[in-house]
Amino acid sequence: MSDHVYKKVELVGSSPESIEKAIENALAKAAKTLNHMDWFEVLETRGHIVNGAVGHYQVVIKVGFRLDD
Amino acid sequence: MSDHVYKKVELVGSSPESIEKAIENALAKAAKTLNHMDWFEVLETRGHIVNGAVGHYQVVIKVGFRLDD
Amino acid sequence: MSDHVYKKVELVGSSPESIEKAIENALAKAAKTLNHMDWFEVLETRGHIVNGAVGHYQVVIKVGFRLDD
Amino acid sequence: MSDHVYKKVELVGSSPESIEKAIENALAKAAKTLNHMDWFEVLETRGHIVNGAVGHYQVVIKVGFRLDD
Amino acid sequence: MSDHVYKKVELVGSSPESIEKAIENALAKAAKTLNHMDWFEVLETRGHIVNGAVGHYQVVIKVGFRLDD
Amino acid sequence: MSDHVYKKVELVGSSPESIEKAIENALAKAAKTLNHMDWFEVLETRGHIVNGAVGHYQVVIKVGFRLDD
Amino acid sequence: MSDHVYKKVELVGSSPESIEKAIENALAKAAKTLNHMDWFEVLETRGHIVNGAVGHYQVVIKVGFRLDD
Amino acid sequence: MSDHVYKKVELVGSSPESIEKAIENALAKAAKTLNHMDWFEVLETRGHIVNGAVGHYQVVIKVGFRLDD
Amino acid sequence: MSDHVYKKVELVGSSPESIEKAIENALAKAAKTLNHMDWFEVLETRGHIVNGAVGHYQVVIKVGFRLDD
Amino acid sequence: MSDHVYKKVELVGSSPESIEKAIENALAKAAKTLNHMDWFEVLETRGHIVNGAVGHYQVVIKVGFRLDD
Amino acid sequence: MSDHVYKKVELVGSSPESIEKAIENALAKAAKTLNHMDWFEVLETRGHIVNGAVGHYQVVIKVGFRLDD
Amino acid sequence: MSDHVYKKVELVGSSPESIEKAIENALAKAAKTLNHMDWFEVLETRGHIVNGAVGHYQVVIKVGFRLDD
Repeated sequence: MSDHVYKKVELVGSSPESIEKAIENALAKAAKTLNHMDWFEVLETRGHIVNGAVGHYQVVIKVGFRLDD
Repeated sequence: MSDHVYKKVELVGSSPESIEKAIENALAKAAKTLNHMDWFEVLETRGHIVNGAVGHYQVVIKVGFRLDD
Repeated sequence: MSDHVYKKVELVGSSPESIEKAIENALAKAAKTLNHMDWFEVLETRGHIVNGAVGHYQVVIKVGFRLDD
Repeated sequence: MSDHVYKKVELVGSSPESIEKAIENALAKAAKTLNHMDWFEVLETRGHIVNGAVGHYQVVIKVGFRLDD
Repeated sequence: MSDHVYKKVELVGSSPESIEKAIENALAKAAKTLNHMDWFEVLETRGHIVNGAVGHYQVVIKVGFRLDD
Repeated sequence: MSDHVYKKVELVGSSPESIEKAIENALAKAAKTLNHMDWFEVLETRGHIVNGAVGHYQVVIKVGFRLDD
Repeated sequence: MSDHVYKKVELVGSSPESIEKAIENALAKAAKTLNHMDWFEVLETRGHIVNGAVGHYQVVIKVGFRLDD
Repeated sequence: MSDHVYKKVELVGSSPESIEKAIENALAKAAKTLNHMDWFEVLETRGHIVNGAVGHYQVVIKVGFRLDD
Repeated sequence: MSDHVYKKVELVGSSPESIEKAIENALAKAAKTLNHMDWFEVLETRGHIVNGAVGHYQVVIKVGFRLDD
Repeated sequence: MSDHVYKKVELVGSSPESIEKAIENALAKAAKTLNHMDWFEVLETRGHIVNGAVGHYQVVIKVGFRLDD
Repeated sequence: MSDHVYKKVELVGSSPESIEKAIENALAKAAKTLNHMDWFEVLETRGHIVNGAVGHYQVVIKVGFRLDD
Repeated sequence: MSDHVYKKVELVGSSPESIEKAIENALAKAAKTLNHMDWFEVLETRGHIVNGAVGHYQVVIKVGFRLDD
């Protein structure tokens, strides 16, 4: 990370299966427009309830990516 | 969520299997007495250690539900 | 927990598979040198991104263990 | 507040008009079942966006009320 | 805490004597209607001033109790 | 919010009239370039003082919008 | 703000009408003794409940003012 | 608290005896120059260690007092 | 504290009597293995409830001690 | 800041020399694509360690810039 | 710090050169009216941007000083 | 950081010169007993005041180091 500059963007991914899958879905979407994604940080984990059970998980993450030199 | 009023309650669910399962257990219990549960927010994730490994996960959540009109 | 004194240490475990597995890895390592580990608290969940997907999860935890009498 | 004990509950009120009206709506609803409501604290202010403008405000509050002696 | 589900409620106790006594007062009140109270967490410590000295301490706590199976 | 991915951006709106108007101004500006804006969260409320009175309110918000599929 | 030094003080204003009016009341009071007030930051919004409705809003603000050169 | 404006100041009291006594010492000192002190809030509790035991407790509080009309 | 380097460790002490006594118990235990303990900071105050009353207080502290030169 | 709307972006700059230089590097990079940058806020200061000494500082900042009218 | 009572005030210093210089400027100003200043704590570091570079650093500090006996 | 486990310790370094130097001093001390130090995070920046100016800076950091395999 010596001389690089990074930017962080905040995303919300969701999945009916798991917290990990919600993170993966957010990254997969971001990967279509961002290069050099380097790390993520989970800010919030929440979800929607349907019929008294988890409908889907919603995970708010920050993604850090390197700006082109 | 236009004119409704919601209440949030704080619950702790646990499971020896996973964080998701601990959330599901808390919701299943709450579903016995609460109607109109709409969303949850994870506040804390912790757990008990048995013999140097996870005994069970404990997840503190807030559950939002709509008050009857 | 009546008269005991506990110490907490902060660890970072990682796993390419899941958040739970990252926690387990940190505990397994700590169990080699610490006795009487009693509970853990998740402080941060983050991870490394490789080719636009999760490379591995990194989970920062605090582990509480009882000091010998 | 000398010898009394108070309880706090967390509510979410909403209004298309203003933050104050969203608070009032939550209190009006709570007043139907709670006596001795004494104070409120705003925890979060948020809202829903419809066609690029505020659809309604959502205000999360804690309400403190005195428990009957 | 293996398979149980817990609920947390937020209370404010007060006492002219001490912080500990304010906590005890809140618990004594709660014990009249709640079973299986298991732990408490202090959230805020504050108080009322009368004639330039502490009139009474006010302690905001969360109380965790096990939901009946 | 089932399978969608959302992005959040942070904006600061201002208004000499009210907190609500400052939020509306930020949304109106954002609506010129963003589609599918879904919700906002107020992070900070502050303002400029002119001649001992509020010159204008400044409200920092996060706006969540759905990324195109 | 180049070479100036600023001080911040913490005030609580109240109003039965609105959050904005509570802020204005605090500033009006402070303006009697402070010069060069430059900005304010809202720290907490709360209020007193009378007969199940808002009696008055109480807004905790920090006010920044320039120290005389 | 209807139309009054309050100011808060931050103080640190200390005592070799107890947390409560440290608060009382800070209030006693403040009472020499401040009128209308109304409430306090504990921000931090800490202390100095002498020979492996508590030398004295240091308690950081905010004190709210009404500004003269 | 001119040129010294300090380390902080996190401990949990408990006592059925008081918050102060729980702090003292943690320090007494730590004093058996640590030299040059200089200050402590209270992070959390909590406790166990037995039969609707405080069973014992649990206080989480950080202890700062000077590293040998 | 009367009628303008501002946006904030989060950047990470780094420098082997100093915290200030890491901030300057992030700004210099951002200045290539952003106009009207007005202020920054430091969120986190951290760094990489090489051979037991600071390899480079990493400073996370938010940059606020005015959106074109 | 045995029996003394301390007060904390919040100041904002600025400097075009460095974070340290901004702190020093705030202290120099405060030293003209306050005696017995004992310690400071940095709360926020921010700054103004001019032509895409740091115009000046602004550092918000709390200064603790002993009240006269 | 693939399969490794890291531990974090909290240190306080000081220097009369600069914030950076205080960090370096803490690392230099830690390097005498810790191997594989990898990163640091600044938690608090504060200092001692002597004669109305900075006597020395005190910087609280967390240091992360890899546990031996």
